Formats: sequence, C-alpha cells, structure tokens
Amino acid sequence: MKSAAIFSKPAKAELTRVAPELVNWLRARGCEVIGDTETANYVPGIKALPREQVAEEGPKLVIVLGGDGTLLSTARAVAKAGIPILGVNLGSLGFLTEVPLGDLYSTLEAIEANSCSTESRALLNCQVVRQGTCVAEFEALNDVVVNKSAMARLANYDVYVDQGFVSNYKADGLIVSTPTGSTAYSLAAGGPILTPSVDALLITPVSPHALTHRPLVVRDSAEIVIVVKTADDESFLSVDGQVGMPVIDGDRLTCRKSHHKVKLFRMKKTFFDVLRTKLKWGQR
Amino acid sequence: MKSAAIFSKPAKAELTRVAPELVNWLRARGCEVIGDTETANYVPGIKALPREQVAEEGPKLVIVLGGDGTLLSTARAVAKAGIPILGVNLGSLGFLTEVPLGDLYSTLEAIEANSCSTESRALLNCQVVRQGTCVAEFEALNDVVVNKSAMARLANYDVYVDQGFVSNYKADGLIVSTPTGSTAYSLAAGGPILTPSVDALLITPVSPHALTHRPLVVRDSAEIVIVVKTADDESFLSVDGQVGMPVIDGDRLTCRKSHHKVKLFRMKKTFFDVLRTKLKWGQR
Amino acid sequence: MKSAAIFSKPAKAELTRVAPELVNWLRARGCEVIGDTETANYVPGIKALPREQVAEEGPKLVIVLGGDGTLLSTARAVAKAGIPILGVNLGSLGFLTEVPLGDLYSTLEAIEANSCSTESRALLNCQVVRQGTCVAEFEALNDVVVNKSAMARLANYDVYVDQGFVSNYKADGLIVSTPTGSTAYSLAAGGPILTPSVDALLITPVSPHALTHRPLVVRDSAEIVIVVKTADDESFLSVDGQVGMPVIDGDRLTCRKSHHKVKLFRMKKTFFDVLRTKLKWGQR
Amino acid sequence: MKSAAIFSKPAKAELTRVAPELVNWLRARGCEVIGDTETANYVPGIKALPREQVAEEGPKLVIVLGGDGTLLSTARAVAKAGIPILGVNLGSLGFLTEVPLGDLYSTLEAIEANSCSTESRALLNCQVVRQGTCVAEFEALNDVVVNKSAMARLANYDVYVDQGFVSNYKADGLIVSTPTGSTAYSLAAGGPILTPSVDALLITPVSPHALTHRPLVVRDSAEIVIVVKTADDESFLSVDGQVGMPVIDGDRLTCRKSHHKVKLFRMKKTFFDVLRTKLKWGQR
Repeated sequence: MKSAAIFSKPAKAELTRVAPELVNWLRARGCEVIGDTETANYVPGIKALPREQVAEEGPKLVIVLGGDGTLLSTARAVAKAGIPILGVNLGSLGFLTEVPLGDLYSTLEAIEANSCSTESRALLNCQVVRQGTCVAEFEALNDVVVNKSAMARLANYDVYVDQGFVSNYKADGLIVSTPTGSTAYSLAAGGPILTPSVDALLITPVSPHALTHRPLVVRDSAEIVIVVKTADDESFLSVDGQVGMPVIDGDRLTCRKSHHKVKLFRMKKTFFDVLRTKLKWGQR
Repeated sequence: MKSAAIFSKPAKAELTRVAPELVNWLRARGCEVIGDTETANYVPGIKALPREQVAEEGPKLVIVLGGDGTLLSTARAVAKAGIPILGVNLGSLGFLTEVPLGDLYSTLEAIEANSCSTESRALLNCQVVRQGTCVAEFEALNDVVVNKSAMARLANYDVYVDQGFVSNYKADGLIVSTPTGSTAYSLAAGGPILTPSVDALLITPVSPHALTHRPLVVRDSAEIVIVVKTADDESFLSVDGQVGMPVIDGDRLTCRKSHHKVKLFRMKKTFFDVLRTKLKWGQR
Repeated sequence: MKSAAIFSKPAKAELTRVAPELVNWLRARGCEVIGDTETANYVPGIKALPREQVAEEGPKLVIVLGGDGTLLSTARAVAKAGIPILGVNLGSLGFLTEVPLGDLYSTLEAIEANSCSTESRALLNCQVVRQGTCVAEFEALNDVVVNKSAMARLANYDVYVDQGFVSNYKADGLIVSTPTGSTAYSLAAGGPILTPSVDALLITPVSPHALTHRPLVVRDSAEIVIVVKTADDESFLSVDGQVGMPVIDGDRLTCRKSHHKVKLFRMKKTFFDVLRTKLKWGQR
Repeated sequence: MKSAAIFSKPAKAELTRVAPELVNWLRARGCEVIGDTETANYVPGIKALPREQVAEEGPKLVIVLGGDGTLLSTARAVAKAGIPILGVNLGSLGFLTEVPLGDLYSTLEAIEANSCSTESRALLNCQVVRQGTCVAEFEALNDVVVNKSAMARLANYDVYVDQGFVSNYKADGLIVSTPTGSTAYSLAAGGPILTPSVDALLITPVSPHALTHRPLVVRDSAEIVIVVKTADDESFLSVDGQVGMPVIDGDRLTCRKSHHKVKLFRMKKTFFDVLRTKLKWGQR
C-alpha cells in the first residue's frame, strides 16, 4: 500500500482516537495518507480534500470509518476510479461496513499481504431526461427513489421496462434498487432481499394505491424508465437517500446498470451471516 | 326538507347539467337551497357561501355532488352541526359517495319520506401541542398522517397509548385512522380493513425500518400521542390528505375520538358490497 | 386461597424442582392443591385430575407452569367456571404467561393480599354446522383456523358477516381470531395487532390468491360464518392450534364472541411492554 | 409440422368441438397427431398415450388445450425432450396459456411458417435426500413447496444456500420458485414478481413466525438446501402443486436450476401485458 485515503463520519467521538492512530499506523508502513475534509478535523496536518477529488490522487484504497451512509457516499465518489473500499463500522454492524473496529489492523495486514479478497457490487445509473435533454445524471449503490412531497395526496408514475409499458403507479413513490439496496429502503417498503450477486434490478412501489402492485425483479440488462406524472405537485428524486433534486411532470428517469462497479474488501462473513445479525433472524 | 345545501366537486363536466336540475327539483318542493362557492359556478343566482359557513344557515342536509374527497371536506365542515350528508358520486363508486347519479332523486324522495336511514361515522380529533400549548386542532373523517419530507432520509416518532409507551418508530410516516379511513391511505400502507362500526382507532406505520412493526388497532377510547423526533428535517401533518401544517421536533400530536360524528344517508348496499366492488374481490 | 390447581407443561426439566416447591408453599399456607395429570408426574401423592375435570373441584385459581400453549388449553378448560389463571413462564416471556419464575411467590402473595388485579380476555365460540345440525362446538382464546390439507392445491371459502356476504376466498386458509390471538398465528399470516381490550374479531386470510384481500376487523357482536367449499379435498378446523377436526364441503363454521371470558392475573407490565420485548421493537 | 401432440384438460365442454376440429386441421396438413389419454375421450380413434410417454414419439410440438395447470404437467412431461409447447387457454387468460382459442389456427400457421418465436423458461430440479440417499427427484416449472400438515402447529426448516447457513424458519412452509413460479403460489404468500428472464431462484416463506423473514432472491447457479426439522408431524413436498410426497425429519431437499428448459411458443404480448390483465393493474 503506497497510498490510502480515509473518509470519516462526522461527529463520532471515537474518531478523535481512531483516526490519528490509523494515520500513524499507515505512515509507519510507508503509506501516504489523504483524508476527506471530515477526517482532517481529527488529524491535524493531514492532506485533506473533498471526497469527490480524492480519486484523482490515486489512493490504493479508501478506508471508511463510519457507517453505511458514509460508505454510500464514498462509493459514489470513488467507484468510477475503481478504488477498493474497506468499510469499518464505528458502532453497530452495517450491511456495507462489516469490519468491526477491533479487526481494522488485522484486516489492513491481510490487504497488504494480498490475502483479503474484494467483492464487486453493481451500481445503478439514473439519467433525468427533461423535454428530451438529460439534465442530471447520478450513480447509486443502493437506490434511486422518486417520492411525492409530504403534503401531496398522491403521485402518479408510468413505468416502462425495455420500452414495454409495465403499469401506471399511483403511490407515495417508486424505488429502483440494486441488489445491495434491497436491504435498505426497499425492504422497509415491503421489498424482497436480493443477494448481492444476483444480476437483477428491483422496482418497489411505496404504498401503492392498487393493492395488486408488487415488487418487481427484472434483469440487470433492462432499461427502466419512470415517467413522472404528478398532476399538481413536485416529486423529488433522491439517490441513496443522500443527494437528489426536484423532478416535474413529464420528466423521464432512465435507470440502467452502471458501467462501474464498487469494490468492497470482504470479511469471511457471508451475506447471510450479516443478514441474520442485522435482522435478528433466529433470535428469541 | 325545508332547506338543503349543495357542495360540488370542481371541474366535473356533468355539474353544468346536474347542479341546476337539482336546485330546480329542490325548489319545486319548497326547499330553500344554499350552495358552496363551487356550486355557484354552475347555478347562477344561488345563495352561496364558503363550506365552513354553510352549517350556520342550518340546512337539513348537505348533498355532495362529487367524490370521496369532496365528502371528506364536507364532513369536516358540517359534522359539528350534526347535519346529515348525502354523497352522490359523479363518476365511479366511492367508499363514501355511494349513491349513483341515477338514484339521486329517488333517494331524496326516500329522505323526504323519512325512509332513508343514516349511519354514524366516527371522527378523529387531533391537537398539535407545541411546548405545552395547543397550536392547532383538526377533525378528520379518514385519518391524520405525519410524514417526513420527500428529501428527508427518515423520520422518527415516539408513540404512546393512554400514556403507556408503545414504541419508537423510524419510518416514512405514521397514520392514525378511523375505521372509515382504514380503506384510504392506511390500506395502501398495508393496514387492515375495519368495518365502520368497530369502536377502534388504527395506527399504521408507513415503511417502518423495523420489520417487526405492524398496524395496531386500539380501543376508540384511547388517547394516542405521537411525539415528533425528526432530527434535522421537517415533518408534515396532513388531515384527510387535504389540510395540514408543518410540525417540528418535540411537537406532540394528541389523537382521540372526536365528540362529533358524521351522519351519512345510507343506501341498501352493505359495507362489504362496496368493498367487493371497489377492490374487485371475486372477479376473474 | 383455600384451594389452587397447578397445570404443567410436559417435559420441562425445571418442573422437578419447581412443582414440588410450589405445592409445599401452597400447603404451608393451608391451601388445598390439585394438579393436572402432568403435574402429578413431578409431585407424587398430589391429587390429580384431567384438566377438563379440575374446574368441578372449584379451585380459587389455576397456576400454569409452562408457556402460552399450556395457558391456552387451561383457558379452554376452566374459563366457563370463571376461575382466574396465573401464567408463569418456564423459559422465555410469553404473550400470556408473562410472570417470570422469579416472581412466582411474590405474585402469589399479592394475589392472597387481593392486590393483584385480573384482566378479562374475550373467548371465541365456534359451532360446526353440518347439514343444519351443530356437530361440534369449540371455545378458543386465540383463534379458530380452517386450513387446506398440505397436498391440496387450494381451499375455497365463502364468508358472511351478520348474514351479509363478504367475499369468496381462495386461500390456504382463514383465521378468525380474538384480540388475544392477533399476536399468534394471524400475525404470521400478515394480520394487525389488536390490543386485548378492543371489542372486535379479526378475520385474516392465509396466502389468499386474490392480492386485494386484507385482514378484516369486525365488531365483536358480529356473527361470522365461513362456508367450506373445497372441491375435492378435506379442510381441517383447528382451535388455538391444539384441537380440531376435519371439515367437509358445505360445513358452516359459525363464529361468535363467547359468553365466557378468561380472567388472567396481570403484572404491572402493559401489553405494549410485552409486545416490545417479544417483537424486539426498538432494538438495534 | 410432421407430427404434433395434443394434451387436454379434463372436463372442459368445448373440447368436444375443439379437439376433433384441431385433429382434422392438423391431419389435413399431413401432420400425424397423438393425444394424451384425456384427448382420446374427445377424439375417438386418435392414437393416445399417457403424457409421460408422448415425448418418445418425437412430436414436433405439444398443443395444450386447457389452463396453466395442464401446461405445468405438460412441461414436466416433455421438457427433457426439448419439445416446444403451445398453450391455448380454454377459458380465461393464463400466465402460461396465453393464446386465446380464437387465435389457435393463425398461431399454428405462424408456427408452420417459422414466424412464431419460442421463449425458454427455467425449470427447477429438486432431489429429496434421505439419510444420504436420493429417494426422489422432481422437475418443476413453477415451484417446489414444503408444507406442514393442516393439523400441525408449526414446521421448522433450516435453509442453506451454497452450503452457507441462511436461517432457521418456523413457518407454515417454504416455497422455492422459478421466475415463472413467482406469479403462482409465491405471489399469494407475499413474494415479488420476477420477469421470466431473470437468472434467479426465489425462496418465499409461508406465514413465517419471525416477522423479519422476507422473500429471498438468489442467483440461479445457487444450490438451495432445505433441511426438514418438523418435530412431531409430517411435512409434505409438492411440485407445481400437482405431485409430491411426504417428507420426514432430517430429509434434505436440494434445489438447483435444472439442466432442462421449457420452450413456449410466444405471442406478441409482453410479460407485463399478461401481468396487467391478470392482476387488473390500472383498472378502476
């Protein structure tokens, strides 16, 4: 490891201790360290950049000290550059940040020794097309969600898959999710769980008025188009629950599997081990 | 019938014909007619008032020409005064406006002859208590909903029933519903159907993060308190999906059965007949 | 307490110690003790009777050492006689047996001192009417379930409430549940939770083929009739998941609130306290 | 078309007219015709064989006159031989038998002219392994279901995917489904809809006691093993809801994608067109 970046979650008390220790540990091994601007708060003198500029520096990995939220924004920032991510949870086990703090250094040693494998996770690309022009483009690790505003009575969307009409949805919103995102918002909205390796995308309606609507799983080669038809109110697009924009009547949200993937360093836990722990399966 | 009021739904083409005809029919029987301001658009010269002022004129009934939405706002406007409502649907069968246009005059004749019974529907009262002071009060025929804003990641609510702590909910929102409202938004959010005569209130979480949360049915004598705890974003309160206000951290939404009830003229259809038709039960 | 009965769950190791101790404790206070035949295995010399005969001896209470299953059969055996029940859980907290073993004697002292209140729980009565004749009658504390056999493709039921047709159900089965039973099988089948004091009955379809069917909550004064219409296979009726019988085409299962109630000694925990613990609400 | 087979659904009145007509139509074009034993009831003198023997005769296609049930058993009988199937519905539109009777001959002409494409559908293979020995093997087009008996209180299954432990399930049953089967029993049990081309298998629990269990979508290369652990009662295995066998404690049900596929002649309707019609999406 010639160089590494550290991205931190704001306002976690342990960072005062953990971040400087980690920087020292890396430097002692001859590894150059960059931090995001958050990490710089805890490690005075570190070279710090906004997350979206870190990839240009070419670090060999990004270490995320935080939770799944921090990892989601990290993934969107560095996936294009193909930089692998090590997610370390400060606090409770995450779906994505599965390495406990106590295993941080042994895991880094395994990475140095090339004995820690990585897993690829699909990203979702979403283009917002307004009157024929793409006005915005996003990449999501979890999901792209279009939602009515809180005071609106109902939103209204037409959905097409590979140019075939699927249905009109009158609903609070629609979620287009990767397999990774199937354990996030889609799960709360009643969606199924997809293991990360399934080559599929998931369309989950949120509180649909027609009781016969169900979550829909399509091939990941599919092009999913959502046409926004909310009569009198704005809808909002949100990406991984973190960034987004208002969308208006007639906007076409075109969702496809991204050309990029996220690389995550993997512990020995299986996806099901994490699932059982997070969802408390089998506990009494 | 010495006097009747007519409330209309905006922008229904049939009103041009139906509203004046109905006024003539009523006047021909010596009945004084008041309209809401909407109806006045279709019946020039009619005495017209805003809906909330009509009750003071003491009409013997209100005839709603519209859909369930129009009837909901009518109910909130005239329930306190105990004025019974006849819901006539222009368009498709409603849960509340179940009289088809073709049965309007025969139903009015039955009402005149005292051979049309009424059914009482419970209303829900909601007080918004901010720092110990009631800052707003609403009556709902369907439901009171507290919802996160579209861009917010999650809202957070504590719920108490009769001062006993129920649970914290991390969710898109919470619905407190009357039995009447159980076939409205609560149904879309996964709630059960309560027949109108059940003496109960229904608490339905919308997309709760904890998969073990379920809709909760409590006695209608219960006091339900929702404490708003959304960390960084506004939540919105909406009443029957029609009126509402923003609510902030610490607000206590106190929901109880109202002292008032809505009286609806009833057709011979049972609640289950309407349900079967609306939900297409038993169709192939 | 002049007399008490003890009902035990089979094959719980602690009974070897707990049952004789409890008998001694009661006798030392001048209380006559009867056991069910199970308890007699652990307390040689105790007067023992089958559960359904114990009520005739007129004990002042029945102490259940076991789980919710044991309490269910106890309730069916002694509810008619109005004998109150103290449910002591051996193992994990039950919805019905909420007193932990460690609180057994302090609770009995509270009962002796008349400082332990009881709570009434509604029972459900079900008559099986075959060709106009009642061929069997059951009382349930949780639920009455009619289910297709495992190899059958589909069962088919018509449901009536107060003689009004509700719907035909093509489903694996139908559950008619008390509020108490709403946290049992109905919950697994997707039903809502009713607090024990709601005056209602709950009809929950199990895997209905029509996606628009939903759990239905009706007044507890309602008469619910299920007409069995499974074309070519048997259906089975089961009561509290414990007793039952095969039913055949044309059988009418008539369910009503029972004239009897079950009296349970209550701890200070609220229903919501138990719910939170059992369903792990609010845990991370 | 040198030869064709006809498989019919028992007891459909139209078969008296349709089956002989179809045989004449085929023979007039020099096509040899075989029937299943059912079809022979309607066409005296036809060469008839049990369904499972028809493939040996090498017909160029099988025409199914019936519903989805008939097509399921046809698929299990002829998929291994790679014979394509034309599903003609007598009655309502099926998910699998989507050709209406009125389009039968035009579709056959298109098949003759090689202008009707076929679609491949994945089959599921299930081996029942008892004490290390495979005692039965099945192929399913829809699903393999293991279910408790109607009087049993609960069944208990351990599930493994690719030898990794997933979870213990206490439930009425478990469904392992192909994408094709996602619109059958799994849908009634709360499962998502998978488009036929998704390379995945679906595991849907039926009325699981733990509220956190959710339908699970895994790659179709996965090996799914269900270990039967029902303490005191039999469970039953059923295949496409049509054939099956009792299974006992310790049995391992090993489910994998089959080496075989079913070929269906396809109309111009998309999967979503069929879905919208069957589920009445978008109707008022």
